[in-house]
Amino acid sequence: MSANPKFVAATAHVDEAAVQPLPKSRKIYVTGSRPDLRVPMREIAQSDTHASFGAEKNPPLTVYDTSGPYTDPGAKIDIRSGLAALRAPWIAERGDVEEMAGPSSEYGVERLNDPKLAELRFNLKRRPRRALAGANVTQMHYARRGIVTPEMEYIAIRENQRMEGHSEMLRRQHPGHDFGAALPRAITPEFVRDEVARGRAIIPANINHPETEPMIIGRNFLVKINANIGNSAVTSSIGEEVEKMTWAIRWGADTVMDLSTGKHIHETREWILRNSPVPIGTVPIYQALEKVDGKAEELTWPIFRDTLIEQAEQGVDYFTIHAGVRLPFIPMTAKRMTGIVSRGGSIMAKWCLAHHRDSFIYEHFEDICQIMKAYDVAFSLGDGLRPGSIYDANDEAQMAELATLGELTQVAWKHDVQVMIEGPGHVPMHMIKHNMDEQLKLCHEAPFYTLGPLTTDIAPGYDHITSAIGAAMIGWYGTAMLCYVTPKEHLGLPNKKDVKDGIMAYKVAAHAADLAKGHPGAQLRDNALSKARFEFRWEDQFNLGLDPDTAKDFHDETLPKDSMKSAHFCSMCGPHFCSMKITQDVREYAEKQGVSAEEALKRGMEEKAVEFVKKGGEIYQRA
Amino acid sequence: MSANPKFVAATAHVDEAAVQPLPKSRKIYVTGSRPDLRVPMREIAQSDTHASFGAEKNPPLTVYDTSGPYTDPGAKIDIRSGLAALRAPWIAERGDVEEMAGPSSEYGVERLNDPKLAELRFNLKRRPRRALAGANVTQMHYARRGIVTPEMEYIAIRENQRMEGHSEMLRRQHPGHDFGAALPRAITPEFVRDEVARGRAIIPANINHPETEPMIIGRNFLVKINANIGNSAVTSSIGEEVEKMTWAIRWGADTVMDLSTGKHIHETREWILRNSPVPIGTVPIYQALEKVDGKAEELTWPIFRDTLIEQAEQGVDYFTIHAGVRLPFIPMTAKRMTGIVSRGGSIMAKWCLAHHRDSFIYEHFEDICQIMKAYDVAFSLGDGLRPGSIYDANDEAQMAELATLGELTQVAWKHDVQVMIEGPGHVPMHMIKHNMDEQLKLCHEAPFYTLGPLTTDIAPGYDHITSAIGAAMIGWYGTAMLCYVTPKEHLGLPNKKDVKDGIMAYKVAAHAADLAKGHPGAQLRDNALSKARFEFRWEDQFNLGLDPDTAKDFHDETLPKDSMKSAHFCSMCGPHFCSMKITQDVREYAEKQGVSAEEALKRGMEEKAVEFVKKGGEIYQRA
Repeated sequence: MSANPKFVAATAHVDEAAVQPLPKSRKIYVTGSRPDLRVPMREIAQSDTHASFGAEKNPPLTVYDTSGPYTDPGAKIDIRSGLAALRAPWIAERGDVEEMAGPSSEYGVERLNDPKLAELRFNLKRRPRRALAGANVTQMHYARRGIVTPEMEYIAIRENQRMEGHSEMLRRQHPGHDFGAALPRAITPEFVRDEVARGRAIIPANINHPETEPMIIGRNFLVKINANIGNSAVTSSIGEEVEKMTWAIRWGADTVMDLSTGKHIHETREWILRNSPVPIGTVPIYQALEKVDGKAEELTWPIFRDTLIEQAEQGVDYFTIHAGVRLPFIPMTAKRMTGIVSRGGSIMAKWCLAHHRDSFIYEHFEDICQIMKAYDVAFSLGDGLRPGSIYDANDEAQMAELATLGELTQVAWKHDVQVMIEGPGHVPMHMIKHNMDEQLKLCHEAPFYTLGPLTTDIAPGYDHITSAIGAAMIGWYGTAMLCYVTPKEHLGLPNKKDVKDGIMAYKVAAHAADLAKGHPGAQLRDNALSKARFEFRWEDQFNLGLDPDTAKDFHDETLPKDSMKSAHFCSMCGPHFCSMKITQDVREYAEKQGVSAEEALKRGMEEKAVEFVKKGGEIYQRA
Repeated sequence: MSANPKFVAATAHVDEAAVQPLPKSRKIYVTGSRPDLRVPMREIAQSDTHASFGAEKNPPLTVYDTSGPYTDPGAKIDIRSGLAALRAPWIAERGDVEEMAGPSSEYGVERLNDPKLAELRFNLKRRPRRALAGANVTQMHYARRGIVTPEMEYIAIRENQRMEGHSEMLRRQHPGHDFGAALPRAITPEFVRDEVARGRAIIPANINHPETEPMIIGRNFLVKINANIGNSAVTSSIGEEVEKMTWAIRWGADTVMDLSTGKHIHETREWILRNSPVPIGTVPIYQALEKVDGKAEELTWPIFRDTLIEQAEQGVDYFTIHAGVRLPFIPMTAKRMTGIVSRGGSIMAKWCLAHHRDSFIYEHFEDICQIMKAYDVAFSLGDGLRPGSIYDANDEAQMAELATLGELTQVAWKHDVQVMIEGPGHVPMHMIKHNMDEQLKLCHEAPFYTLGPLTTDIAPGYDHITSAIGAAMIGWYGTAMLCYVTPKEHLGLPNKKDVKDGIMAYKVAAHAADLAKGHPGAQLRDNALSKARFEFRWEDQFNLGLDPDTAKDFHDETLPKDSMKSAHFCSMCGPHFCSMKITQDVREYAEKQGVSAEEALKRGMEEKAVEFVKKGGEIYQRA
């Protein structure tokens, strides 16, 4: 296959729309204990409150930023060169890795030496690294030995954000109010280390992906979301996939999974990795299957092993491994409405049936751990038997597999290999909590990573919504990362618009979960946006939201003029009548009355006020 | 103001797209105990299962149908004439109403006699009706006297749908399986009567809106959704609003609220009512405010009373009445992040402040009940103090008002007037259940009717999703009707696309809630769709879904050819590898093994299978 010139053109630059800062946002960096530990955040500027609402300054709001250097006008973006290797010195300093002469996987060598791939290939000058013989380079291994890595410190700063200004403002504006969990608590590097050591959180950070900005997946941190991209035999090019990745992180994807099943899987992945500041996950069995021309029964341990090493040396941060699909569980799916819907699960099921034994993945699980710890690839233990319909939710096959994943978690932890557990799928609301409770119990609190779940099957075209409902709930119950579902689920592969729609639905779900969990500081963004809304700071309302572009477009459909952005009304009620405006009268009234809400309650509000009315009091009269 | 020729053109016919049956759907009628009691339903035809999946017939699926005569090719649709008055004989037979000479409200008479309105006016030949002196024509009144009205029988048939074929199929396909709530129970006319008598459900059915197809709102029935439409001073025409109504019911709106605040409110409402087969709700204070040129403090009881009579004689089925906004509660909102965000609430608050007393609505509540029972208008007791931000959720003002709504419910019930209670608003997930529990307790199980709630404030442009999450949850907890939120919420008035997007999000939420509540038969549609999906019956998958048009369009983006509709693969995995296909192998395996899932479990599955593997059994071998 000769190189596709269209592909080269597409990857020579990144889409302009994806490299502008968001409106009124600027990239800031918070420096940690060493000068090369600079944690990026997005700072959203706000305008001042208008005189009619009390004329005050509104501090900028700092938010978690997944977009990487792409939204930093000071950064040089060149897709052909890839991102800077910011973690390279940290990895080198630990003194436990060796630089190899080149890829050690057979397939990696073959692709590197194939002259026909020259134009498709990312030109990586750096050589792959792996742990020195006998060394273990996982973040869990360091954590368990009491070492706080730069990655851990980076994460502590990142999860805290910078909320001091807001806390102060809120306390001032609402004296005496009990904010409960709404004001920030500090997350310390030591807390991060402890959570990783316990296995309750993971830091996906392959030593061959030094471009990553460290992040954490665990239920005592912000709920994360993953976006799936990847081509199939019938669609898409490498350039499009890189563009989907930069687009996904712009809107908030915390990790990206490359699920390509079509041509040039190896090269596609390389381009994505070299340009991704977020961890990249894959399902290695997809590529292994391509190597045996789609014949699952011809898969072997050597082929799979070579694929793991190939991908680990490219820098994949976590692997979905369907080790829980055991032969005895397979007949349990025969009476299902929708059988086995996981691609990986069905590949393994087919293999097991063909060979009438447990899979090479299950049998070689400890060998896989040896590979994982040599590069720090985290396990994402796949739910190959997840339900594909409401009818099949929480059945025996699903629960039998989950118990097996719990057993494998303990095997992985014996090797200090990081683990998260994948979860369903299709589950009606009343059965969601049971999933979370069983996962925590059976999998020893390893982080849960769920696809949705979809709460009904009846809305093809709207499965980002059927599943955002389930995702928000399971996130609240304790799921650490939510795998997005796009409107194209069940119907086709997502395009850029679908990717954004899926991400938006999941940013909503994740944030709703953070609020419900009482995550420190999560509510500050809601408060800032609602204050802006109330004070008719239209631009601030757009900019503080998840998607300023769409909010502004929607507003402009009915009130397009720029002067309307400071209008003290909106198109819903028109200029003559406005509920927000009336509330101002209420505040003035309360102030003039000298009756604060708290005092009123203390004095037995209702009775007193009624009495006051009866006396015909008319202290305050509208003009 | 002279008539707008554009308006006349727009109302002369209904949009073609809104009057076609949905794909492979036909309107059927189930006749009750009398020939004029014909309950419409939508029957979705399915194709046969392909030979590779066992070659069987798939029975048509019958679903609840809100779309009225518009989707019946046999019905004559003429917007200028309005719909047939199907309930007219039932109302007349009860012998408790009188036909009036004409409207009895001053405003109604004025509009009727204004020659400038001639071209705008709907030409209604029927005269308004009201209860005979001393009579009470509410469905609750009949219910409490033990009378099962035709409306109640109609509802029992409608809520049951026709699911016999499916129950049989499911039992056959899954012998021995415990279906639990997934198989239908019967809802009887007597059960409907009893729920209405208790006040636990309402049937909004004004005697002057005989065009309605009776429906019920109560937590022991299917969860319903409401769509808001209506113009404001800055947007929209009468024709557009009628079109939004027909569009909303096509996609599943169970009731429609006309929230117009702009010009020609009276005439807009008349056109909507005469063409609506679903109950219409309004907020009469909006129109009353227009009558005093937007000056809330100039509102009076006589003006409000006249407005109620005007609208009751047009046929409005339920009124939002903000009687719970009491003077003593108003200062409780002063320290809120977003004050009073309900339009009706803020109008009443402004009035209370200006006059320094409780509102004329609160003080004349029993007078209002007298009007309601003369036409059978139901109360929707408005939550004027609902929270407009996460920060304000479940605060004192909200809860104080809710307690008042509970007291007023008992006053209304004294008059046998039907009541539902409106609920928030903005509420984080962990505080939703408290809302439902308090509502049930304080309002004596009167049906709850909530706006969302929105589970976060940070996503303007996506509030159909922030709120569908809360709506699904509160629906599961017991809310009877969910008021939709469109993507334009907080930003502008919804256009047709927004109306559909809002409805789809809420159909998903309502159905997810029905599943979680175990509503009889709800899961049959999920099962039918999932079976179609599994068997690669693409057209059936689209047609069984909430929005066949969108599902088909999405599919066709990547696999447009018609032949692909029967393809045994999809664009996600491509033709060479397909998880659904592999599952077929699993079924064959399980069959050949003679090991059913149940038997396997009984025999201690896992051990046996492992033993079998050890023996090297190779009964089944793939080619």
